[in-house]
Amino acid sequence: MVGSVGFESSALESNGSLKTRINGEDDAREIVMGRNVHTTCLSITEPNDDDEFTGDKDAYMASVLARYRMNLVERTSNHLGYPYNLEFDYGALGQLQHFSINNLGDPFIESNYGVHSRQFEVGVLDWFARLWEIEKDDYWGYITNCGTEGNLHGILVGREVFPDGVLYASRDSHYSVFKAARMYRMECVKVGTLVTGEIDCADFKSQLLANKEKPAIINVNIGTTVKGAVDDLDLVIETLKECGFSEDRFYIHCDGALFGLMMPFVKRAPKVSFKKPIGSVSVSGHKFVGCPMPCGVQLTRMKHINVLSSNVEYLASRDATIMGSRNGHAPIFLWYTLNKKGYKGFQKEVQRCLRNAHYLKDRLREAGISSMLNELSSTVVFERPRDEDFVRQWQLACERNMAHVIVMPSVTIDKLDCFLKELIEKRSTWYQDENVQPPCLAADIGKGNCTCAHCN
Amino acid sequence: MVGSVGFESSALESNGSLKTRINGEDDAREIVMGRNVHTTCLSITEPNDDDEFTGDKDAYMASVLARYRMNLVERTSNHLGYPYNLEFDYGALGQLQHFSINNLGDPFIESNYGVHSRQFEVGVLDWFARLWEIEKDDYWGYITNCGTEGNLHGILVGREVFPDGVLYASRDSHYSVFKAARMYRMECVKVGTLVTGEIDCADFKSQLLANKEKPAIINVNIGTTVKGAVDDLDLVIETLKECGFSEDRFYIHCDGALFGLMMPFVKRAPKVSFKKPIGSVSVSGHKFVGCPMPCGVQLTRMKHINVLSSNVEYLASRDATIMGSRNGHAPIFLWYTLNKKGYKGFQKEVQRCLRNAHYLKDRLREAGISSMLNELSSTVVFERPRDEDFVRQWQLACERNMAHVIVMPSVTIDKLDCFLKELIEKRSTWYQDENVQPPCLAADIGKGNCTCAHCN
Repeated sequence: MVGSVGFESSALESNGSLKTRINGEDDAREIVMGRNVHTTCLSITEPNDDDEFTGDKDAYMASVLARYRMNLVERTSNHLGYPYNLEFDYGALGQLQHFSINNLGDPFIESNYGVHSRQFEVGVLDWFARLWEIEKDDYWGYITNCGTEGNLHGILVGREVFPDGVLYASRDSHYSVFKAARMYRMECVKVGTLVTGEIDCADFKSQLLANKEKPAIINVNIGTTVKGAVDDLDLVIETLKECGFSEDRFYIHCDGALFGLMMPFVKRAPKVSFKKPIGSVSVSGHKFVGCPMPCGVQLTRMKHINVLSSNVEYLASRDATIMGSRNGHAPIFLWYTLNKKGYKGFQKEVQRCLRNAHYLKDRLREAGISSMLNELSSTVVFERPRDEDFVRQWQLACERNMAHVIVMPSVTIDKLDCFLKELIEKRSTWYQDENVQPPCLAADIGKGNCTCAHCN
Repeated sequence: MVGSVGFESSALESNGSLKTRINGEDDAREIVMGRNVHTTCLSITEPNDDDEFTGDKDAYMASVLARYRMNLVERTSNHLGYPYNLEFDYGALGQLQHFSINNLGDPFIESNYGVHSRQFEVGVLDWFARLWEIEKDDYWGYITNCGTEGNLHGILVGREVFPDGVLYASRDSHYSVFKAARMYRMECVKVGTLVTGEIDCADFKSQLLANKEKPAIINVNIGTTVKGAVDDLDLVIETLKECGFSEDRFYIHCDGALFGLMMPFVKRAPKVSFKKPIGSVSVSGHKFVGCPMPCGVQLTRMKHINVLSSNVEYLASRDATIMGSRNGHAPIFLWYTLNKKGYKGFQKEVQRCLRNAHYLKDRLREAGISSMLNELSSTVVFERPRDEDFVRQWQLACERNMAHVIVMPSVTIDKLDCFLKELIEKRSTWYQDENVQPPCLAADIGKGNCTCAHCN
């Protein structure tokens, strides 16, 4: 219910407005729920009878779009906080925007609707099947609308396989995992995390033992949203076995939203693979790959999907997806990039991202700013900037006392230098008064990564 | 599990392949689940080291795309069965494909991610709020990925308002409604339909009385998928009241997938309006409006949405949507068309569609072919063509003995004439043998609309 960048606390007033507080101080900005963007919205106006002759309407719309485009250029260049690769060139695909491309239902089975892109979609899925080591005939999957749909699907498959299963997810899991539990009316256990953000398998073990009689459905994070922490899949599987869960009594969904597509290209990284007893993997397509609109890839085992299928004669297609109609452009964007860059291209980009992330973390440390970078990750967590305008300008995502920069292929050293320079300059003004101290991040990223006066 | 156009029956063989039968005859084509499209898929190949110099890869990809484009042109022109308006010109928006536009979370509350199109989205939502008669401050809504997401959302809101509510939906409802019931673990009652496809309120009444102690969540179809039948919203509300359900004990979701956007422009049509005790309305954006990718509009009452909201500090945004990340291009497409055409433009198009639908039905009748056209609808239901290649060529959707053509703005009289000519010619060969008779459609569309030998 908070209307701008994350605040320490917020309270809904009886008049429906929302008062926000930063570090205990009242904030001047008041956010009135559901009314904020109405004020800046681009209303739709009924065309006049003479519009065709005067061209006024066309001129108005062209000017709106031109201004909007300028804004997109500016906002795209000043972006650091979300895991989106904003650098792509899909010029060759512009010609396809004239078509209403819809991949109805199951990607592997032709429907009657002819304007689809299934042949591209299956090409992309096969590529991911190779990456995650599962045979063509053993997997099923589809291109989703976003990472959330992948999680909703994976957890739903898990629930259909184990109707009375308990869902386990670390508290650093993406919010869509807990949304799924609520939607699907599943029992859900939140497991603690280490300071890195990884799932705490000691806590996981005790929770498993407390629910021993029920099958387990586990969400494993291949890169958490805030800290970019990778849950130890092998340790999760080992813990399950230690607690007496045989493979026919658990289902693992791997939420690889961002890092699921980066990790395979990091040499010493642990492997996400269907050779291990996992049930499904999802990854976002608009993040590391880059895509004009959100999309994702969801893969599961063919044997699981039949429990979810139901015949839909109308479409002449099995329906095991969450959404029935699906964006047919997204698979073509992914197909295009995978073909262009290939395994080697991604490897190079991942290495550059990791290098640049280290660069950023080192510079922050040199400047005396609390920061953390998990091994295998390009998410640099650091002290939350005190100025909300600064946060908004760089489009940082914040939680508690942390902010983060996610180093994507579109984030260059130049951009980081520019960001660092401004941060360091501004920060010196935020804390010039000795009574105002930078926040302590010991609880968030560990004492060793915190530079606050108390920790040092 | 059926791999091509709907068959009379199908049986999964023990080897995993699927044998299909049409009218009791064994079909030569065998469909092997999950392997069909692998064979025609466009595989992704790793680029060669010298690709940059030779340009071979670029040339290959350009040729794939050119061939694909030709196929799209052909398939777009030969399309009658799905309710998609394939006629649109979004040339002015091509410039936006370079941006990763993502409307994260709630459309009314700014998130930190700057590359969004919320100002367009809210403009579109306000337009629909006016259409469905609800004040700006009283509604909440968002642009969805498709009609299914609208239904999933509306029914979820209903369930959150009435956790022990029973879901009622006519058996002609879209399959996503029953999918929702399964996903959300809701008790679901399938209500019978009249021959037109409308909900049978006599049956609805008896079902309501049998479940009197539990609140009712009702899916009302504003245009069913197969027959384009419009459930009588006023009669549904009256029935609820007759059975002792006061307004605080029921929730109505209106699935206006296609016709929700056409009906307001038909003069004597009953009204979908928030002045009536309904909870939510959804409509598809890629159907009557036309859009390169599936999308939809979902509106509900603000008072209901708070039960669904949960704070997500990470995004700095309330999350009451199903999908977290949302395609930011879709709202701009809708905004563009609503501005260009306006109320009057839609009215003209709806009138033309209804006129053309009547034309098609009259010509079919003249040719002695069973057919039905519901009042207020542009969906012409008729005898299912015997030749599956013909069905595929015209991309018809079929169920039992019925096929349908949905007359959208892109379906002209010329196209219908071409279709009729071919249908009548081919049909004369299908039934030249006196022992083979056209199917009886009395059970599907009523005796009065059936032309079979038995009915006449």
